[in-house]
Amino acid sequence: MGFCFVVAVVALLTDFGFRDYFVAVMKGVILSINPGARIVDITHEVPPQDVFTGAFILKAAYRWFPPGTIFVAVVDPGVGTERAPLILKTRRYFFVGPDNGLLAPAAEEDGVLEAYRIEVRLPQLSSTFHGRDVFAPAAAYLSLGVEPRLIGSPISQWKRLEIPEARVVDGVVYSRVVYIDRFGNVYTSARSLQGVSYGEVMCVETPRGVLRARYVETYGRVSPGEAVLLINSEGYLELAVAMGNAAATYGLRPGDEIKIYRC
Amino acid sequence: MGFCFVVAVVALLTDFGFRDYFVAVMKGVILSINPGARIVDITHEVPPQDVFTGAFILKAAYRWFPPGTIFVAVVDPGVGTERAPLILKTRRYFFVGPDNGLLAPAAEEDGVLEAYRIEVRLPQLSSTFHGRDVFAPAAAYLSLGVEPRLIGSPISQWKRLEIPEARVVDGVVYSRVVYIDRFGNVYTSARSLQGVSYGEVMCVETPRGVLRARYVETYGRVSPGEAVLLINSEGYLELAVAMGNAAATYGLRPGDEIKIYRC
Amino acid sequence: MGFCFVVAVVALLTDFGFRDYFVAVMKGVILSINPGARIVDITHEVPPQDVFTGAFILKAAYRWFPPGTIFVAVVDPGVGTERAPLILKTRRYFFVGPDNGLLAPAAEEDGVLEAYRIEVRLPQLSSTFHGRDVFAPAAAYLSLGVEPRLIGSPISQWKRLEIPEARVVDGVVYSRVVYIDRFGNVYTSARSLQGVSYGEVMCVETPRGVLRARYVETYGRVSPGEAVLLINSEGYLELAVAMGNAAATYGLRPGDEIKIYRC
Repeated sequence: MGFCFVVAVVALLTDFGFRDYFVAVMKGVILSINPGARIVDITHEVPPQDVFTGAFILKAAYRWFPPGTIFVAVVDPGVGTERAPLILKTRRYFFVGPDNGLLAPAAEEDGVLEAYRIEVRLPQLSSTFHGRDVFAPAAAYLSLGVEPRLIGSPISQWKRLEIPEARVVDGVVYSRVVYIDRFGNVYTSARSLQGVSYGEVMCVETPRGVLRARYVETYGRVSPGEAVLLINSEGYLELAVAMGNAAATYGLRPGDEIKIYRC
Repeated sequence: MGFCFVVAVVALLTDFGFRDYFVAVMKGVILSINPGARIVDITHEVPPQDVFTGAFILKAAYRWFPPGTIFVAVVDPGVGTERAPLILKTRRYFFVGPDNGLLAPAAEEDGVLEAYRIEVRLPQLSSTFHGRDVFAPAAAYLSLGVEPRLIGSPISQWKRLEIPEARVVDGVVYSRVVYIDRFGNVYTSARSLQGVSYGEVMCVETPRGVLRARYVETYGRVSPGEAVLLINSEGYLELAVAMGNAAATYGLRPGDEIKIYRC
Repeated sequence: MGFCFVVAVVALLTDFGFRDYFVAVMKGVILSINPGARIVDITHEVPPQDVFTGAFILKAAYRWFPPGTIFVAVVDPGVGTERAPLILKTRRYFFVGPDNGLLAPAAEEDGVLEAYRIEVRLPQLSSTFHGRDVFAPAAAYLSLGVEPRLIGSPISQWKRLEIPEARVVDGVVYSRVVYIDRFGNVYTSARSLQGVSYGEVMCVETPRGVLRARYVETYGRVSPGEAVLLINSEGYLELAVAMGNAAATYGLRPGDEIKIYRC
């Protein structure tokens, strides 16, 4: 008796949570096909059916993984409809998931080389759990080195999803909240505060009012409770409260408009 | 210096949560005995001491794992009492955990071949953490290929736990809520709606009132907020609200009686 | 093409949570450096910036892991300030994290042999995410067998953190709440109740009043709702409510003073 045993990283991102059996079943399917797969959880706490947030997290995480990693992302409000199950082969990775924009920002940043509609599935396809029946097996086959053309048919288009960018007009930065992390740090779509020096206090206009925040290089150098702006580790201009929760303090939500200017 | 290194999947299910050190300690013990064990979390978010829900999740998850997987399940309100620590060897798997019904529905579905009372334990047995002291070492030894008769004594009986089934009388389906998932989808004990066609609207009588829900094939084809009935990926008749939370909307809890009939 | 592939356990403890991409990025970095690393999560649910609780969990978990395990702990309110990034090589393990006391109780219990200030980092060091840029790469190099002196400079001092001990004066145990677990069990700093027999009822004085609790050997032998004292699996004297939540019932929080005496 021989068996194939290939070590490849399969990284999962879903909105399934950890309390049910959904994620475990996907892992069981992957290991049943490739017992050597190294499965890593990116997160399963994407807000239910929030494709934008899933795409944002995938884009923030993917490039730190080893070349050859297979990303399986499932945030899929359209499961059971006509949306295609998708493989995007990029310069360094594979991305597997529904064709609803979830994979696009990460895959396009890395550079899409080929795209496929997945044609394999487990024998009894359910209409509600393609993570188990379609995406997990496709990822497991890829992790064994199976060519994507053997499990999918080539396609030339996929759904895009734009992560908004900031504009600067007359010294005012017009941006949006694109992400709020567990600590309540608020990521704006801005990537810089050009011409502003560390230590300057800026005005930040939100849907709930105007606040003042100091532009700093790091959290470590401010007093607890102070509002600050800084370029975070992902390269986004972030509004934070030292030792506090900026999103809760200022009532901010993803999508909110944020204007930043000298007071 | 040589050491034994055997690759086997050890899958964990507990009510320990992820915020404490309990699950990590079990993993440390397993890896200390078998450094080659591939540990997979099923879930650790079973409601504290809810044996029924633990058994339900284990039964939903187990059969998707590779043959030879060792399942360790710990939801154990009787820890420190006389309930036996159990190994059930089934047709394709091993199940390890307390003899309180937790393992029974999954193991019996797969077909129990042999049963053992675990006799090994770590040197300083505590009376409150058999996950660490009894179940983790037993699972780790099994994962190395140790025969269960070398770590346990044969027994002929174990505690059963029935997952209730639905009855149909005069066209009325009498069922119970058996599970509620993270999305608020309500699993009833019914497995079919015989004679009903996709698209029909049914009456659903709950302890909190009567609602109407359309029988559909998939979530994807209904309007947001609409109540639907569908056979889910586990084969249960499920009450769901498209893009919403059925359990919260209708105030349903596990164990509630649900009657379904043509209005 | 050849590559190095070394199996070593890397165990992670952070306050990053599982909902963002932070933990995944650390894992990606570790696997990019050592594809053979076996990554285990201790917990990522340490209360944000609560160094004491992180240190307590690390001390409770570490000794159950195989010799050679590399522990990476990141609870780091001082990220971006002058606090050093630290490696402690102990009798059996490596501990990697910020020099703020987080590593000290576990490492000192095992016995510190050598200490280093980490000097390696990823090319573009951010000021807010040393988990990714400093601690993950250091741990990954250690997991490949790289000597710590090649990635750090020797130091002779590190920040201490004491887990308080109880005192007994005139038969009264003066202790503090040191930990509260997911079940609401309250760990006091006491390690024994000398001279008290199983079954005796003791008075427990808290900041919110005096309650009575029976000293028992295990949860299993008491009635639901009864308050009990027992030596738990970690060796701490624990206040628990059978089938209930002691911390919620009695309004207790970490740091609260607890006096225990014969009524």
